Amino acid sequence: MPSRYLSFRCSVPWLILLLQALLLLRSFFGFPGVSDTYSFSNSYPEFQDVNHMVIFGFGFFLMVLRRYGFSSTGFNFLLVVLGVQCSVLAEDLLVFFRGEQNELGLGSLARAFVSVTAVVISTGAVLGRANPVQLIVMTLVELTFFSVSRYINETFLEVPEHLTGLHVYLFGAYFGLALASCFPEPPPGLDKNRSTPKSELFSVLGTVFVWVFWPSFNSVLPSFKMQAVLNTYLALAVSAVAAFMLSALTSKDGKFRMAQIRSAVLAGGVAVSYTAERIHQPWIAMLLGLLASAIAILGSHCVQRCFNPALKLQDTSGVHFTFGLPAVLGAVAAVVLRVVEDGIDTRWNELSRLGYDAFVYIGAFCQTICTALITGLITGLILNIKLLKAVHVSKYFDDQFYWEVSFKMISD
Amino acid sequence: MPSRYLSFRCSVPWLILLLQALLLLRSFFGFPGVSDTYSFSNSYPEFQDVNHMVIFGFGFFLMVLRRYGFSSTGFNFLLVVLGVQCSVLAEDLLVFFRGEQNELGLGSLARAFVSVTAVVISTGAVLGRANPVQLIVMTLVELTFFSVSRYINETFLEVPEHLTGLHVYLFGAYFGLALASCFPEPPPGLDKNRSTPKSELFSVLGTVFVWVFWPSFNSVLPSFKMQAVLNTYLALAVSAVAAFMLSALTSKDGKFRMAQIRSAVLAGGVAVSYTAERIHQPWIAMLLGLLASAIAILGSHCVQRCFNPALKLQDTSGVHFTFGLPAVLGAVAAVVLRVVEDGIDTRWNELSRLGYDAFVYIGAFCQTICTALITGLITGLILNIKLLKAVHVSKYFDDQFYWEVSFKMISD
Amino acid sequence: MPSRYLSFRCSVPWLILLLQALLLLRSFFGFPGVSDTYSFSNSYPEFQDVNHMVIFGFGFFLMVLRRYGFSSTGFNFLLVVLGVQCSVLAEDLLVFFRGEQNELGLGSLARAFVSVTAVVISTGAVLGRANPVQLIVMTLVELTFFSVSRYINETFLEVPEHLTGLHVYLFGAYFGLALASCFPEPPPGLDKNRSTPKSELFSVLGTVFVWVFWPSFNSVLPSFKMQAVLNTYLALAVSAVAAFMLSALTSKDGKFRMAQIRSAVLAGGVAVSYTAERIHQPWIAMLLGLLASAIAILGSHCVQRCFNPALKLQDTSGVHFTFGLPAVLGAVAAVVLRVVEDGIDTRWNELSRLGYDAFVYIGAFCQTICTALITGLITGLILNIKLLKAVHVSKYFDDQFYWEVSFKMISD
Repeated sequence: MPSRYLSFRCSVPWLILLLQALLLLRSFFGFPGVSDTYSFSNSYPEFQDVNHMVIFGFGFFLMVLRRYGFSSTGFNFLLVVLGVQCSVLAEDLLVFFRGEQNELGLGSLARAFVSVTAVVISTGAVLGRANPVQLIVMTLVELTFFSVSRYINETFLEVPEHLTGLHVYLFGAYFGLALASCFPEPPPGLDKNRSTPKSELFSVLGTVFVWVFWPSFNSVLPSFKMQAVLNTYLALAVSAVAAFMLSALTSKDGKFRMAQIRSAVLAGGVAVSYTAERIHQPWIAMLLGLLASAIAILGSHCVQRCFNPALKLQDTSGVHFTFGLPAVLGAVAAVVLRVVEDGIDTRWNELSRLGYDAFVYIGAFCQTICTALITGLITGLILNIKLLKAVHVSKYFDDQFYWEVSFKMISD
Repeated sequence: MPSRYLSFRCSVPWLILLLQALLLLRSFFGFPGVSDTYSFSNSYPEFQDVNHMVIFGFGFFLMVLRRYGFSSTGFNFLLVVLGVQCSVLAEDLLVFFRGEQNELGLGSLARAFVSVTAVVISTGAVLGRANPVQLIVMTLVELTFFSVSRYINETFLEVPEHLTGLHVYLFGAYFGLALASCFPEPPPGLDKNRSTPKSELFSVLGTVFVWVFWPSFNSVLPSFKMQAVLNTYLALAVSAVAAFMLSALTSKDGKFRMAQIRSAVLAGGVAVSYTAERIHQPWIAMLLGLLASAIAILGSHCVQRCFNPALKLQDTSGVHFTFGLPAVLGAVAAVVLRVVEDGIDTRWNELSRLGYDAFVYIGAFCQTICTALITGLITGLILNIKLLKAVHVSKYFDDQFYWEVSFKMISD
Repeated sequence: MPSRYLSFRCSVPWLILLLQALLLLRSFFGFPGVSDTYSFSNSYPEFQDVNHMVIFGFGFFLMVLRRYGFSSTGFNFLLVVLGVQCSVLAEDLLVFFRGEQNELGLGSLARAFVSVTAVVISTGAVLGRANPVQLIVMTLVELTFFSVSRYINETFLEVPEHLTGLHVYLFGAYFGLALASCFPEPPPGLDKNRSTPKSELFSVLGTVFVWVFWPSFNSVLPSFKMQAVLNTYLALAVSAVAAFMLSALTSKDGKFRMAQIRSAVLAGGVAVSYTAERIHQPWIAMLLGLLASAIAILGSHCVQRCFNPALKLQDTSGVHFTFGLPAVLGAVAAVVLRVVEDGIDTRWNELSRLGYDAFVYIGAFCQTICTALITGLITGLILNIKLLKAVHVSKYFDDQFYWEVSFKMISD
C-alpha cells in the first residue's frame, strides 16, 4: 500500500497551505488595529511565559517514546502555531457575533495559547498513533468545539470568562481520551512505545520547564495574579513531594518510577487552577496538590492493574491521570469552596441563590465534560474514515514514517 | 606535524589573556559610572532575554554535527562573552570620537549582544572548520568592521541608529559566507559533518529557544516595542507553519526534513526585523514570514541541487538560507514599505524626497553587504595564512581535536 | 542483604509523608495572610528567575555522571521543593521568636530559594553516594543550621540581613565537604563515576542556564539591584573567558577540559556575590571574576595532582572549586573593599570603628565556615550510622538502585 501512504503525505502540505491562506485572508480584512488593553511591560512577560511553556515545555514533555522524538516536538510546534492563529480567529468571530470590535494584542495571543493547551493535551492521548493530517483536523475541530463550549458556559450559564478558559484541561483530556478510543490498538508485540533513559531525560527536561512556568500559566486569565501564582506554586510543590512519596510506596521494591513522577508533579497545578485566585489559606492549595498527586499516581497504579484491559483506554502519555482526573478534582473543589465560602456569610433567604450558584458551577463542568466526550468521539470516528488514511498500526510510534532520516534512528 | 598543532594550541590561551587584559585595562581607565537610561525593571528583562537567546539558544542551535557538540556550544559561549566585551569597547570608542560621555549599563550590554549576533551567525558558516584562534581573530575583526559599517550608515547615510543595528543578520551572514569560501573544503569521504538524531534533538532544543525569544530580540532596539513584538511573533508563526508545508512539498515522498525546518522557522524573524516596528497591518508581517520561509526552503532545495558544486558555497549550518536571503528579503520589503507608505501621503513636490529616502535605504543595504563580503574575504585570506595554523581538513568537525575526552565520543 | 536495602527504601516515603504533614499542619495554623511587600510585577520575575535557576539549572548542572541522570535531577527537584517549604517554616519560626508577624509572599519564597541553594551545593559534594533518606535528613539539618548561623550573624555580629543570606555558597560548600569526608570512598575499580559526552552535554545545558540566571540570583537580596546585576554579569563574563584560557594552559597538549570549564565559568558569580551591589568600578568586578576562575582551575589542577590522595577529599562534582574557594575569595575581597572604601574617607578618630567593621566581617565569615564544617562533620557521622542504612559502595553512582528502569541504562 505505499501509494496510499504517499497520497496521505501529499495532502499534509496542501491542508496546511489552505489553512494558512484562510488565516492570512482573515487578517487582511481584519483587525482594525493592533493594540492592547494592558501596558507592554505587563502583558509581554505573561505572553512570553505561556509561549515558552506551551511550545518548549510541552514539546519536550511529550518526547517520551524512544523513536518518536522528532514527531513529538515537531508536531507539537506545528499544532501550536497553527492553533494559536485559529484560536485568535475563533475568538474574533465570537466577538463579531456579539457586535463588538476586536483588537489583536499580546493579551489575546496569550489567551489563544491557553486555548491551544487543550489541543496539546489531546495530542498526548493519541501520541504516535495519529498522522499529521489527523492532528491538524483534530486541532481545528477541537478549538471550534472548545469555543462553542466556552460560549455556552458564558452565555447560558453566565460563568465568568476567565473561569471558562480554565476548563481547558478538562476539555483537552476528555476530548483526547474519547478520540483515542476510536484509534485501533497497537499490536501487542510492538515495542516502539517504550521509553529509553535518553528520551525520558528529554521528557524530564520538558516537565521541569512546564512545572516552573505553571504559576505563570494559571495567572494569565485571573485578575488576582499574586494569589493565583502563590497558590499554584504551593500546590505544585506539595504535589511534587507527594509524587516521590507515592511513587516509592506503590512500586514493589520501593523504587521511584519516572513516568509516574513526571505525571504527578504537574497534577497539583491542574487541580488548583480553578480556585487559585480565590484560595486565601495556603493549606487548602497544599491539600489540593496532595490530593491531585495521589489521584494521579494511585489512579495510574490501580487502573493499570485492573481496568485498563477491560476499558481499552489507550492513552499514550497518561493524559487521563496528569490532566483529566486532577481537573475533575479541581472542579469538585471549586464547587465545595464556593459553597463553603458563601455558606458562611449567607442568610437563610439567600440560600436559594447559593444553591443556584453551585448548580451553575456543576452544570458548567458537566456540560464541558459531556461536550468533550461526545465531540471527541465523533471526531475520532471521522478521523478514522478511509479518506484521511489513518496510519497502519505497524507504523505507530515511528519517526521514520514522517521524517527523512538518513542515519540510524535515535537510541536504536 | 604534531608540534605544529601543539604550538597553535598554545597560542589560544595567550591570545585570550592578551584580549582580556586589554579589556580590563580599558575598564580600569574607564567608564565614568555605571548607570542606565531606562529603569531597572524595563531594561533587565530585555537584557536577560537577549542574553538567554544568544548564549543558550544559539549555542544549542549550532549543535548539529554529531562529533562537534562540545565545540559548538563551548566556542559559541567563549566568542559571545569575549565579543560582548569587545563590542562595548568598540561602541565606547565610537562615542568617544563623537566627543560624548559613555556609560556602562544594561542597555549598552543588550546592544552589544545584538552586535555579537553577527559573530554567532558567521561562526555557523565556518562551524567545524575554523580553530579557536581563527574564531577569536574573526570575532575581533568582524566586530570592528561591523562598527565601521554602522558608523558609515549613521554618519554619511543618516540612517537611524536602531535600524543600522538590525543590519546584523545581513552583515553576519555575508561576512561568514565570504569567510567560509576561503577555507579548504572537507574531503569528500569525511562523514563527520553529518548529524545524528541526538545531536539534531539538541539543535531542535536550541532552535525552539531562539524562536521563542526572537520577539524579544527584535524589540531591543526599536522604540515601538509592542508593535515589534507582535509583528515578529506573527511572522515567526507563519514561517513555522510554512516551513512544515514546504519541507513536505519539496521532499521526494512527502516526509519532513528537520534541518530545513530548523532553518526556515527562524527565517520569518529575520525578514521582519527591519520593519517590525513600522508594520500596522498584521497581514504584511504574516506575508513576510511566509515569503521568508519559502525563500529559505526553496533556496536550500534549489541551490543544493544546482548551484552548490559550481559556486563551492561551503556553509556548514545553512547560514545563507536562515539569515542571509531572508535578511535581503527584509531589506527589500523595508524599501517597498517605505516607498508605499510615504507615497500615499506625498504631494508631487515631495517626490524627490521620497526618492532620496529610498535611495538612502538601498544605499545602506548595499554598503552593508559589500563591506561584509569584502572584509569577510580579506579576513578569510588572513585567517588561512600559515601563522594562524589552520586546521588540517582531516581534523574538521571533531571535538577530540580541541577537547580532552577520555571516553568514547558522542554518538559513535 | 537485600532485605536491609528494602527496608531503607520503605522508609523514604514515610519520612517524606511525615515532613509534608508537618508542613501542612504548620500552614494550617499558619500564615495570617498571603501578601507581599513588593508589587507583583517586581517580585514575580525575581521569584521566577531564582525558581528556574535552582530547579532547572542546578538539576541539570549536577547531571554529570553517566549512570546517574535520573537521580541527579530527580533528587535535586525533591530536595528543593521540600527545602523551600522547610526554609519558609524556619524563617517563620525565627520571625515568631522575634515577636513579629510573618506573611507568606513571593518575596519570602525567593529568599527560601536562596537558602536552599546551600542544600543543592552540598548535594553536589555527596552526589551518587548518599541515598534519598540521607539527603532528606541532610536537607533538614543543613537548613536548620544555616538558619542558626544566619541568626548568630544577624543578632550578635549585626551583619545586615541580605549579606548573611549570601553566605549560602560558603556554608553549602564546606558543609558538603565535611559531610562527604564521612562517607566511605568508592572502590578504585568502579567506573560509574565517569561522565560521557551525553551526560556532559546535559550538564553543560544546566551550567549555561545557571550562568545566565546568576545575575538574577545575586540581585534577589540586595537593594541596589542594577549595580548587582551589572557587576555579576561582568564577573561572570571575565571568569568564563579566563576559564577557557586557563583550561587550555593547564592541560598537557593545550586542549580544553569541559569539567574544569563548567566549574570555573560559575566561579566569578560566587566570588562577586558579597560585593556585587557595592562595587562602583567595573574593573573590580572583572578582576574578581578573573581571580575566581584562576582559583577554581588552578585549585582543581594542583589539588588533584598533589593533595587529594592525602586529604581524602571526596567531592563528586567539584563543589570545593566551584563554590568553596571562590566564596572565600569573595569574603576576603569584601573585607578588603570595605576597609579600603571606608579607609579613604575616614578620619583618625574613626579608625577604631573601621577596625571593628572589618573584625565583624571577618568574624561572620569565620563563624559561617566553622559552623558549616563542624555541623557538616556531625551530620556526616550521624548519616552513616546503621539506622539510616547507607548505600553500599558497590551501589554508588547508579540510577538502577533507586529507579525502576526496565530498559538498558543510559549510555551503556
